[in-house]
Amino acid sequence: MNTLKSLYNHSLALLTDFYQLTMAYSLWKSAKAGYEGTFDLYFRANPFHGGYTIACGLQTAIDYIKNFHFSGEDVDYLATLKGNDDAPLFSTSFLDYLRNLRLTCNIDAVPEGTVVFPNQPLVRVSGPIIQCQLLETPMLNIINFQTLIASKASRICQVTSGEPVLEFGLRRAHGIDGATTASRAAYIGGVDATSNVLAGKLYDIPVRGTHAHSWIMTFDNELEAFDEYAKAMPNNCVLLVDTYDTIKGVHNAVEIGKKLREKGFDLAGIRLDSGDLAYLSIQARRILDEGGFPNTAIVASNDLDENIILSLKDQDAQITVWGVGTKLATAWDQPALGGVYKLTALRAPGGEWQYKIKLSEQREKVSNPGIHQIRRFQYKNEFIADAIYDERISDMANPIIVDPMDHTRQKLIHANATFEDLLKPVFRNGDYVYDAPDIHTSRRFAQEQLTGFHTGIKRFVNPHQYPVGLERKLHQLKTELIFEARRQNVGGNQPGAPESQQSKY
Amino acid sequence: MNTLKSLYNHSLALLTDFYQLTMAYSLWKSAKAGYEGTFDLYFRANPFHGGYTIACGLQTAIDYIKNFHFSGEDVDYLATLKGNDDAPLFSTSFLDYLRNLRLTCNIDAVPEGTVVFPNQPLVRVSGPIIQCQLLETPMLNIINFQTLIASKASRICQVTSGEPVLEFGLRRAHGIDGATTASRAAYIGGVDATSNVLAGKLYDIPVRGTHAHSWIMTFDNELEAFDEYAKAMPNNCVLLVDTYDTIKGVHNAVEIGKKLREKGFDLAGIRLDSGDLAYLSIQARRILDEGGFPNTAIVASNDLDENIILSLKDQDAQITVWGVGTKLATAWDQPALGGVYKLTALRAPGGEWQYKIKLSEQREKVSNPGIHQIRRFQYKNEFIADAIYDERISDMANPIIVDPMDHTRQKLIHANATFEDLLKPVFRNGDYVYDAPDIHTSRRFAQEQLTGFHTGIKRFVNPHQYPVGLERKLHQLKTELIFEARRQNVGGNQPGAPESQQSKY
Repeated sequence: MNTLKSLYNHSLALLTDFYQLTMAYSLWKSAKAGYEGTFDLYFRANPFHGGYTIACGLQTAIDYIKNFHFSGEDVDYLATLKGNDDAPLFSTSFLDYLRNLRLTCNIDAVPEGTVVFPNQPLVRVSGPIIQCQLLETPMLNIINFQTLIASKASRICQVTSGEPVLEFGLRRAHGIDGATTASRAAYIGGVDATSNVLAGKLYDIPVRGTHAHSWIMTFDNELEAFDEYAKAMPNNCVLLVDTYDTIKGVHNAVEIGKKLREKGFDLAGIRLDSGDLAYLSIQARRILDEGGFPNTAIVASNDLDENIILSLKDQDAQITVWGVGTKLATAWDQPALGGVYKLTALRAPGGEWQYKIKLSEQREKVSNPGIHQIRRFQYKNEFIADAIYDERISDMANPIIVDPMDHTRQKLIHANATFEDLLKPVFRNGDYVYDAPDIHTSRRFAQEQLTGFHTGIKRFVNPHQYPVGLERKLHQLKTELIFEARRQNVGGNQPGAPESQQSKY
Repeated sequence: MNTLKSLYNHSLALLTDFYQLTMAYSLWKSAKAGYEGTFDLYFRANPFHGGYTIACGLQTAIDYIKNFHFSGEDVDYLATLKGNDDAPLFSTSFLDYLRNLRLTCNIDAVPEGTVVFPNQPLVRVSGPIIQCQLLETPMLNIINFQTLIASKASRICQVTSGEPVLEFGLRRAHGIDGATTASRAAYIGGVDATSNVLAGKLYDIPVRGTHAHSWIMTFDNELEAFDEYAKAMPNNCVLLVDTYDTIKGVHNAVEIGKKLREKGFDLAGIRLDSGDLAYLSIQARRILDEGGFPNTAIVASNDLDENIILSLKDQDAQITVWGVGTKLATAWDQPALGGVYKLTALRAPGGEWQYKIKLSEQREKVSNPGIHQIRRFQYKNEFIADAIYDERISDMANPIIVDPMDHTRQKLIHANATFEDLLKPVFRNGDYVYDAPDIHTSRRFAQEQLTGFHTGIKRFVNPHQYPVGLERKLHQLKTELIFEARRQNVGGNQPGAPESQQSKY
């Protein structure tokens, strides 16, 4: 079948911001054409005011990169683009260069399902700077979205604490693949199944669903509709009870359940999709229990998210399966993760890496120079801190980490801590070298990791800030580079002086 | 090239909620297998608290429908799905039925770019009820999202009143096609260009972009970076001036502009991407004007949306081109349109249409029965009201419309009003019969339509509610059906009595 899967199996080299191509062209024409760069993809704040984030999207990114090339048709299209003097923007020889371009980058990334925090590189791309730039936009597009949705799903699953969560967002998600990759990311984040059959097929995710209100309306009355459904689907019988009158609907479901039982089947569940879910679920539980159906599930849906689920649980709602749609698949309360992709080092052909920094008036927007790895330390079965360190200059024998937002907060890592480096090699000189886990392994990995973190990072109100610092030597280098950049670019100002004109406003 | 376009050119029959398949199976096994239904796809409230909505997505829906079929691989996948007794959910003969299924529906829809309002069917699907159900989820997925984004884009373009708007959302949008169809919908909604090169190629949308901060960081200083860029791209030279110090950046841009001019080119623009955009744009305009560049554009970006643009304009910001990314491509403040797809009529093979209604405790959620068309009335070059009418029972000679939320508000349409029916035939018995406009025509259509509506519907605070009513006979029929449904389903209650148990809570 030629669908979304095939989508990723063909080049999408044009899935990029136009400025990546104008920069690629300008670089190619300049003396810097042969330079290499290292770029980090990272975000600056956990989404949803949460205390952690679940990395996701790497497999899609891998598929993208494996198949990266400019087709003849792509290049023909680029040849049609004109400047403001109506002359072509790109030269024929540059277009030939694109046509023959094969990626030779080194790419490292954290596995899908890894619990990650602000400023940690989820992906590190190193290689010819033109190639690194061409990958910027698609990597951000893929990783930002799937990481966002996996994190949202994880929050929801924290609240249901083991009760199944079903992802129902297809009809409101952002287009075909917005929906289908949302299903994928939600599964890695912890949901149990999806209503999206295509996602089920493509990604090996369990699919769930029974019937809609229109099913009931197709028959003369609810009981007849339930009966017909139970006849056809005796082994997947979840009845939607709120088309006309929910309580009456539950009684009708019990009646059908008794008929099912005579045939050796069981009433799998009922579904509530409107009204006061707390009250109705308690009533429904009572009716089902009294009718002899204590094991029949009560599925609820209707604009649920983690906060509404928390509220329903506070009200002792008797819901056992949670259908979550729009608010999960669109990440309703924060529909984008602000991941960025920043140059951290540059080198001339045959030269040494020069570390790079981008200033900003906002301290959290100053980028980290260096060639980074993330080391996660564990002590007595609990993760205690992460160090972002430089592979060449950092002292990792007795590591001290520095809070990037407050250099007076420093932490010496416990001498007996064990550790793991999170960035794994994925491509070397353009060759795929990674052994990717399957989707179920990634999902379990996320769940297992979370149990290793202090519960404080998982709460919703003022979550604990897990310690992530720059290794001290890297922090010192960053500080020097900031002073250096300010001297160079403002001209004559001393370290600490106002950085720029606009900083006064 | 085999990309998103090819995606729509292959079947995505499994892009559906699983319950559509379980219902299809149950229908197929039941006595209702041959029944036909009519379904309306509509939304209940304009997005973003606005006064109107721009319909979008029909072309994608057409591509989807034209290529609808279950492949052998799709059917093989469905054959693997098991019930809770581990027996297959679907019978082999049903799977054969799917394999051979060809759509035979009649589908009517409003053209892309049409200004639409709550309760109006954007798409009407009529045909074998199994087929109608299978189309529900993909139609909602496609139309909900693109209509949402086109409407957001239209709002933004209302504020810039003709100044170009560029869509820059690719890196934060919801996946590959979430981004690419967002670019498409944003263009129909009014933006002038996109940064997404793939969208540019696939949909014939102008592409724009110049360079990033990383370009500046690749060189020893900003002036050198500008100079190299201007050499490579003299005919598309927009310089990003805020990497180190914006004001100094503008002065550097003027210097480069003078060099460009010596070679017969002009400095097309500068771009501001951070800081106080109002203050900086005013300073930049002064520096550019004094430097001899009064025609150089000032492009601004940085989390813009219609409200921030309005505020910048209030502060006399000298921005002439608006780059809008995340907040447009994700519809940040309301990332989903709540479109629904409801059964409005049903008929047995060879029988008459029976009109159908779904009750709800919330008045706006009670569906409209009937086989609907929308008539838009115009008087003296202004649109005055829309009637949702029934093709068979409504009196359209002297139409009176009734507010669906307040039956005491009725309106007699001016006798000299001209009119147009908005739903156009798109498929008849499964055959494509529509002459689809190209994307540029749809974009112009949206803009032209908007000029025909009172400005009150276009304002952001408490917009005027454009009159959309049910034609009176249709309204009367709906009222009768509500009473009838309540009698049937609550048992013995009189019209007006409490509808159900849960209505007390």
